[in-house]
Amino acid sequence: MQYRVERDTLGEVNVAVDKYWGAQTQRSKENFQIGIEKMPIEMIYAFAHLKKAAAIVNRDLKKLSKEKAQAIAKVCDEILTGRWDEHFPLVVWQTGSGTQSNMNVNEVIARRGNEIARKEGWIHPNDDVNMSQSSNDTFPTAMHIAAYAEIEQRLKPALKQLSQTLKQKEEQYMEVIKIGRTHLQDATPLTLGQEISGWRTMLKRSAKMLKQSQSYLLNLAIGGTAVGTGINADPSFGQKVAEQLSKQTGFSFQSSKNKFHALTSHDEIVYVHGALKALAADMMKVANDVRWLASGPRSGIGEITIPANEPGSSIMPGKVNPTQSEALTMIAAQVFGNDATIGFAASQGNFELNVFKPVIIYNMLQSIRLLADGIRSFDEKCIRGMEANETVIKELMERSLMLVTALNPHIGYEKAAEIAKLAHSKGLTLKQAAIETRHLTAEQYEKWVIPIEMVHLNK
Amino acid sequence: MQYRVERDTLGEVNVAVDKYWGAQTQRSKENFQIGIEKMPIEMIYAFAHLKKAAAIVNRDLKKLSKEKAQAIAKVCDEILTGRWDEHFPLVVWQTGSGTQSNMNVNEVIARRGNEIARKEGWIHPNDDVNMSQSSNDTFPTAMHIAAYAEIEQRLKPALKQLSQTLKQKEEQYMEVIKIGRTHLQDATPLTLGQEISGWRTMLKRSAKMLKQSQSYLLNLAIGGTAVGTGINADPSFGQKVAEQLSKQTGFSFQSSKNKFHALTSHDEIVYVHGALKALAADMMKVANDVRWLASGPRSGIGEITIPANEPGSSIMPGKVNPTQSEALTMIAAQVFGNDATIGFAASQGNFELNVFKPVIIYNMLQSIRLLADGIRSFDEKCIRGMEANETVIKELMERSLMLVTALNPHIGYEKAAEIAKLAHSKGLTLKQAAIETRHLTAEQYEKWVIPIEMVHLNK
Amino acid sequence: MQYRVERDTLGEVNVAVDKYWGAQTQRSKENFQIGIEKMPIEMIYAFAHLKKAAAIVNRDLKKLSKEKAQAIAKVCDEILTGRWDEHFPLVVWQTGSGTQSNMNVNEVIARRGNEIARKEGWIHPNDDVNMSQSSNDTFPTAMHIAAYAEIEQRLKPALKQLSQTLKQKEEQYMEVIKIGRTHLQDATPLTLGQEISGWRTMLKRSAKMLKQSQSYLLNLAIGGTAVGTGINADPSFGQKVAEQLSKQTGFSFQSSKNKFHALTSHDEIVYVHGALKALAADMMKVANDVRWLASGPRSGIGEITIPANEPGSSIMPGKVNPTQSEALTMIAAQVFGNDATIGFAASQGNFELNVFKPVIIYNMLQSIRLLADGIRSFDEKCIRGMEANETVIKELMERSLMLVTALNPHIGYEKAAEIAKLAHSKGLTLKQAAIETRHLTAEQYEKWVIPIEMVHLNK
Amino acid sequence: MQYRVERDTLGEVNVAVDKYWGAQTQRSKENFQIGIEKMPIEMIYAFAHLKKAAAIVNRDLKKLSKEKAQAIAKVCDEILTGRWDEHFPLVVWQTGSGTQSNMNVNEVIARRGNEIARKEGWIHPNDDVNMSQSSNDTFPTAMHIAAYAEIEQRLKPALKQLSQTLKQKEEQYMEVIKIGRTHLQDATPLTLGQEISGWRTMLKRSAKMLKQSQSYLLNLAIGGTAVGTGINADPSFGQKVAEQLSKQTGFSFQSSKNKFHALTSHDEIVYVHGALKALAADMMKVANDVRWLASGPRSGIGEITIPANEPGSSIMPGKVNPTQSEALTMIAAQVFGNDATIGFAASQGNFELNVFKPVIIYNMLQSIRLLADGIRSFDEKCIRGMEANETVIKELMERSLMLVTALNPHIGYEKAAEIAKLAHSKGLTLKQAAIETRHLTAEQYEKWVIPIEMVHLNK
Repeated sequence: MQYRVERDTLGEVNVAVDKYWGAQTQRSKENFQIGIEKMPIEMIYAFAHLKKAAAIVNRDLKKLSKEKAQAIAKVCDEILTGRWDEHFPLVVWQTGSGTQSNMNVNEVIARRGNEIARKEGWIHPNDDVNMSQSSNDTFPTAMHIAAYAEIEQRLKPALKQLSQTLKQKEEQYMEVIKIGRTHLQDATPLTLGQEISGWRTMLKRSAKMLKQSQSYLLNLAIGGTAVGTGINADPSFGQKVAEQLSKQTGFSFQSSKNKFHALTSHDEIVYVHGALKALAADMMKVANDVRWLASGPRSGIGEITIPANEPGSSIMPGKVNPTQSEALTMIAAQVFGNDATIGFAASQGNFELNVFKPVIIYNMLQSIRLLADGIRSFDEKCIRGMEANETVIKELMERSLMLVTALNPHIGYEKAAEIAKLAHSKGLTLKQAAIETRHLTAEQYEKWVIPIEMVHLNK
Repeated sequence: MQYRVERDTLGEVNVAVDKYWGAQTQRSKENFQIGIEKMPIEMIYAFAHLKKAAAIVNRDLKKLSKEKAQAIAKVCDEILTGRWDEHFPLVVWQTGSGTQSNMNVNEVIARRGNEIARKEGWIHPNDDVNMSQSSNDTFPTAMHIAAYAEIEQRLKPALKQLSQTLKQKEEQYMEVIKIGRTHLQDATPLTLGQEISGWRTMLKRSAKMLKQSQSYLLNLAIGGTAVGTGINADPSFGQKVAEQLSKQTGFSFQSSKNKFHALTSHDEIVYVHGALKALAADMMKVANDVRWLASGPRSGIGEITIPANEPGSSIMPGKVNPTQSEALTMIAAQVFGNDATIGFAASQGNFELNVFKPVIIYNMLQSIRLLADGIRSFDEKCIRGMEANETVIKELMERSLMLVTALNPHIGYEKAAEIAKLAHSKGLTLKQAAIETRHLTAEQYEKWVIPIEMVHLNK
Repeated sequence: MQYRVERDTLGEVNVAVDKYWGAQTQRSKENFQIGIEKMPIEMIYAFAHLKKAAAIVNRDLKKLSKEKAQAIAKVCDEILTGRWDEHFPLVVWQTGSGTQSNMNVNEVIARRGNEIARKEGWIHPNDDVNMSQSSNDTFPTAMHIAAYAEIEQRLKPALKQLSQTLKQKEEQYMEVIKIGRTHLQDATPLTLGQEISGWRTMLKRSAKMLKQSQSYLLNLAIGGTAVGTGINADPSFGQKVAEQLSKQTGFSFQSSKNKFHALTSHDEIVYVHGALKALAADMMKVANDVRWLASGPRSGIGEITIPANEPGSSIMPGKVNPTQSEALTMIAAQVFGNDATIGFAASQGNFELNVFKPVIIYNMLQSIRLLADGIRSFDEKCIRGMEANETVIKELMERSLMLVTALNPHIGYEKAAEIAKLAHSKGLTLKQAAIETRHLTAEQYEKWVIPIEMVHLNK
Repeated sequence: MQYRVERDTLGEVNVAVDKYWGAQTQRSKENFQIGIEKMPIEMIYAFAHLKKAAAIVNRDLKKLSKEKAQAIAKVCDEILTGRWDEHFPLVVWQTGSGTQSNMNVNEVIARRGNEIARKEGWIHPNDDVNMSQSSNDTFPTAMHIAAYAEIEQRLKPALKQLSQTLKQKEEQYMEVIKIGRTHLQDATPLTLGQEISGWRTMLKRSAKMLKQSQSYLLNLAIGGTAVGTGINADPSFGQKVAEQLSKQTGFSFQSSKNKFHALTSHDEIVYVHGALKALAADMMKVANDVRWLASGPRSGIGEITIPANEPGSSIMPGKVNPTQSEALTMIAAQVFGNDATIGFAASQGNFELNVFKPVIIYNMLQSIRLLADGIRSFDEKCIRGMEANETVIKELMERSLMLVTALNPHIGYEKAAEIAKLAHSKGLTLKQAAIETRHLTAEQYEKWVIPIEMVHLNK
């Protein structure tokens, strides 16, 4: 491999000639040969948005020449096309402020800008690209930009898509009466559509929580620089960059009111991830319900069928498994772990900085992506093809003993219990048992025990 | 001990004569001899509010006689005074729907109501006290009532109190310039008041998140009865009870729009606990900062002093420790674990019910109480007595090398770095080093490096 | 209330006359009005063992008079009877070294000892009871004693008891062939006894892990005093106390080889709790299997029945629920959270001490107790009464399509799959479908598909 | 792109002509477009070992021809060189049994084997490569092989390497007396070597726990096939494969005694990860101690210096940060989250299978790799270059008030406390204060307070 010599304040270092990064990136690459988890590319793109906005604001503030600002902005646009992805080689397990990834971006922008302008050393990574900034305010700013964008562009559409499918299923099956189950035991009836409405409401609730909580991500640390005082930045810098970013992205960013908080606390991310965890808990439940209802085909509950997307077993021929549920529940397990990591990391700030930023954003972005992809896949490969087995549903519902509950208002809980117990012990139908106890007549039974009236459908 | 015979649908059981509970409570007591964690008394009180409201609404709906409703309401009021606390003996580790605690409340109310009225068997625990209800909707309703009330009445006042103290300290020390610290390493200066403002903003942010998220707790499951359909309840029952509860408590409760969700999902509690976790992470950070800044007295940082509340050591005479910080950080650790338990439990619902309700509310109420008490104690026993050691602060600030950052805009990052390195390696002051490098003159140094201008105070 | 005046190095304080504690306990009570979680009584008893052993060793080392040593030992024995329980009022949320609980013990022993001897001020809490000790080595020593004893005396018997019941059920049902289920879908058969043997092996595996890991708790910090150097203690003190404790308790304690580790790391407790977590995960699985297999009674799997211990529902008459499974799975959720708390807390040591000791031992002891009680209750109230529904089991097994797997070695995976699919789509029996495809004859089917041969019973 | 048509029991599917995988892999790729986390390559290699061993045993059992067995073994060897890495494209978020990755391996081996032999369709993925196996036993077998190998080959060498460096530092600094710190407050002295010995003991303890717990990974599920009964496998198959694997790898594998446990419980992995968590907690503590002791350079503790590996700040010139500590503490946070995920996932088995296998092994292998790489990097880039600042250490030690503890045995705890308090309040040296109180003479002070005697060095 061919190398060129780069230098920083610690001295010289060799960099492969075909790479745009500089000395600090190279040092990080060598000093942190840890793991295989790259700094998420969404963070690099968020930095590209930010560096562009910063250059424009520095230009407006007359601190940076128009030419340099334009050059920086141009490279940022190039980065956003994905063209330079391979020039961001650093891993998550680096300095806890993300300084090295900030410098990686600064270095690539400077080198590429100078290349376009054909002026070596013209744009300086620190003095120009990082002007009025510090890693300590740019990295948390990029964290918020990346997380917000991923929620907006990846997760929300997935939630919406699954909600729509559920809505359609809910309407389709609103009058299919089935047995309810509590404690895994037979309970009073409801309709399949009602059951699905519960699932859909979970998504709706989560979407609302997410919308509410993600608004905190619109607060940006930018303008705080090294410790929150904004040293070396114009007092208006933070707010102006936020406005410029809003223009660039369409999201309503604003400068955090207290930058000391913005650099050292990640309560906002903990809170948003709490909404993701609530969503994960709900999806775990829905995915479980789906696979249990589809259990069988002959020795399970079997009230619904789901698509057979692939052979299920390498040894059992003809087996079909609820694999989309499995992927989604594994994702829930991952999100739960990520939540623990993020909470832990967020609690470990000291003085003016929290130095667990890379691990926080790595887990945050993983959770968002996995939930989004998993939900979309669950919708497309499973829920859309889900169908009710109405024969099974009807059969199971009709033999239920818990229809007895409808008798409470007429004969009281204790006599009703006596009927249920008799039916259970002797293997009778509920009606047979009711009559045998003489607590009511066959006519009364017919009049009082009507499943469709027990489900309180709002038509 | 003297016993009386009680019976339920499974048969007879002996209950101590001086206890107001009935057969089902007794069975639970015997069947679940597990642990020492009682169902939180806040849950019993929430049930008392609920049973009273239900009785009043059942009366209004002409389902329950005025006399019975009045008797039930009267006993509920008695329970709320704490008079009957010992008659709720059940542990958390019971049926996952909380049925047995619901029945415990029903049984005590019925027995005590009958005692007052001198009519044995008049009020029935199921048919009257539990009228139009199921454990499946009353228990989650009580969970929301209890958690909301505890946040309002216990946690919020604590947050407010600490915020006010911090505000006062922030103002007092707003112009005390000190060294900043990032990565535990000396950084550019800020004022002690600014540092404290970051802490205060954490509380403010958390309070806002809490306010926002706790509103979800105002949604009540009541009206859903056994599986969410509202079987055996009037369709208006849920909303009317919510309104009655609002009257009784002053909180704006409403009936959940989708009861299938309300019985089987606890996403709302997961979300609220996410806000508690964010608060815990922040408090961990603040408590750590305080103890580090107070470290010493002679061989630590020593920039502040905190009150000596007790002898610190059983072997080292005269030692004083930051014990309030320690209690608070242990609480943060507990809240993190509780968060894991709640998320896990919330994900395990099946079909029409989640049967991890007692463990969820136990952890939720513990988190609220510990944060509230811990924050209040931290305020009263530590922060109020916290004082700046201005001599130490000044000395540490003045010898810092990071004041060099003020030179960046004048001589660039690289020359500034050269000065800092020289000062560090030769043990010079920054000014001496600056002059020695000839990058600037003594006059320029004096003009450019002015700590008070580096902190961007907004006066 | 009547008070007496007590004093410590910070001055005077009022203590209720009927309480045996002194000034430092009283200060802690006032300074830490946090939560309702008392320092576990098992810790107090462990301290009693330790203080007695220390007194005896100090006597042997000629540092403490025989009379004082005897008096201290006598009070320790009294404490171990439970007589003085109410004199240990402190909460978990105190100083992180547990100093105040150590002093509580020292104070009660001194006062009671002086009372017996009728010599006020004779035994001094620090100079005599705490002689050669520091909270920093006594508290972690008591943690290990308490946790080890609880595992031995509470948890292990519970594990053994459930194992024995499972062993009996396993043998009873070893030849009852049933359908297997993987992915919740019908799979090849096994016997109910085999299935139960998997559960029993979990307990066996966990018991082995526990035995192995708990041996680390035999290492005691005693002898390290304030920072691990053993200042103010005889170099032989630690080992001698460990030997004396072994005599007193019957457990083979030893002095930790490196006391710096013993004071500041709790890796040993994290590791043991990892074994508890593995056990909790297994119990979650077993409890889930039991309730799923018992689901129904008419619309679930229904392969087994479990005892009806209590009425299951406050609204649905005659309902019986798997409540012991519910208690046990809630316990698993709690243990998972406790594990998170313990890991977090154990990671937060600084320099010579970890100051999260009370929260660590609180969670540790709760996990042990809950698992022990929950498993014992699950055994006594559920598993012992569990019975196979052989009719249901046989019916479900015989209609399974996965018996087709037995054909793989004869006709290959692909043709076997074709048969299963045909049976599924047309609702045929497997044999009918096999013949229809002409891949084999009825005779071959009879010869090759024999469920009892598919389960590989080792008789 | 060019495609070829592949088929499985569900029909036809297009696969890129240059890829060796078959229909089932292709379906999984299309059905699970979720996330960016590939099935870890260590799992693929473990499968290669396993498939080779299975082929050899099937040959020995006369079930597979020598030619086929040889061809399969040859391809497995090729896979182990890394040559076919890109042909294993599946993600973690697939079927929870890992069936699709098992089939991916089966398909690549079959296709490549047929290519070498120039016989299309000769080796069949299911009937030959998967002979006597099921995903349900091969996947957990590969999990144990991969995890065991990674611990042996990656983690243990890293632990050993850091231990050796610490040992060297410990010896070097064994007589450098420094102040101890408990509760972050000055405490009695110890030597820097003693402090480091505590760190080293953590590694030693963790290494022992790891060694002990990892032995459980030697138990292999192989031989259990679909549900644990071993259907379609010779009863000797499992043990023979374990022996063959031992030959191939040098690790002493054995067949699990109870295969029902082996397929459905992952208690063994939970337990091993508990040891990893204990290690992570210890590393968190060590990394924190290092960065705190190195804090400064002028306004922190500054007792040690660590290497300056890179410029620390993009805005503060000359700043050097403890970045290796930061990477390592972020890794600890990740391991804690992974532990939560693994515990959760392990608890979710149902009946004969746990279908959270991919997420479990993904987190397990990540933890092992991150700890290994992070510890190695911490050693090489930080600890090896760590040096004591003896001047600072001496100065801080000598001004400590906690040397007063040495007076306890001579004048008692209370008088010693009086001296320390006086020194603190008046800013005196301890000796000055001691004399002023008249509790002892200057001569006595000199005789009793000798730091080197307070540290109990064992020379």
